Amino acid sequence: MILAPDFDRAPLVAAIAQDASTNEVLMIAWMDREAWEKTIETGYAHYHSRSRDRLWKKGETSGHVQRIVEIRVDCDEDAVLMLVDQTGPACHTGNRTCFYREGFRPS
Amino acid sequence: MILAPDFDRAPLVAAIAQDASTNEVLMIAWMDREAWEKTIETGYAHYHSRSRDRLWKKGETSGHVQRIVEIRVDCDEDAVLMLVDQTGPACHTGNRTCFYREGFRPS
Repeated sequence: MILAPDFDRAPLVAAIAQDASTNEVLMIAWMDREAWEKTIETGYAHYHSRSRDRLWKKGETSGHVQRIVEIRVDCDEDAVLMLVDQTGPACHTGNRTCFYREGFRPS
Repeated sequence: MILAPDFDRAPLVAAIAQDASTNEVLMIAWMDREAWEKTIETGYAHYHSRSRDRLWKKGETSGHVQRIVEIRVDCDEDAVLMLVDQTGPACHTGNRTCFYREGFRPS
């Protein structure tokens, strides 16, 4: 029995990918029930593209796949955290993470 | 000059809070322009509640505030990652993180 997001209440949930070895947050994308099921079934991260309205496997063209080490659901069952083994860079810019730019640090 | 999310294109962006010292992902919530500006201005995480349709400061009732160590924007400028100094538990259940339940590990 796998705890799944509550897709009846939240058809599209945020899915965070975190590097399982460095704990770096790599990216965030979206999952519907289909993407969740494909991820569980294959052991590789699948998302739902909101702009193209379709299922996509991360790395399907680039080869930069995300093997699932562990997949967690949050308290409200409307968000997913995946600890992944990332092949190559996660970001389409070629950076390891999508959050590659230095941020703001309040003084 | 602070790089901000592109709120004209994405009025509500996902905001991930990560513990700055342990790198644990604590929670995910939502930010509109007002929440972003309050966060930058005060140095404490503010979000926009979708259910109550209002600004909230994390910890405003519980005291479990999140002091911003660094705030990053992703490649697409439609997601935010905050490295925070978390006071008390982040989750309303009393757990340190909202992703407290053991997840699924593909074999």
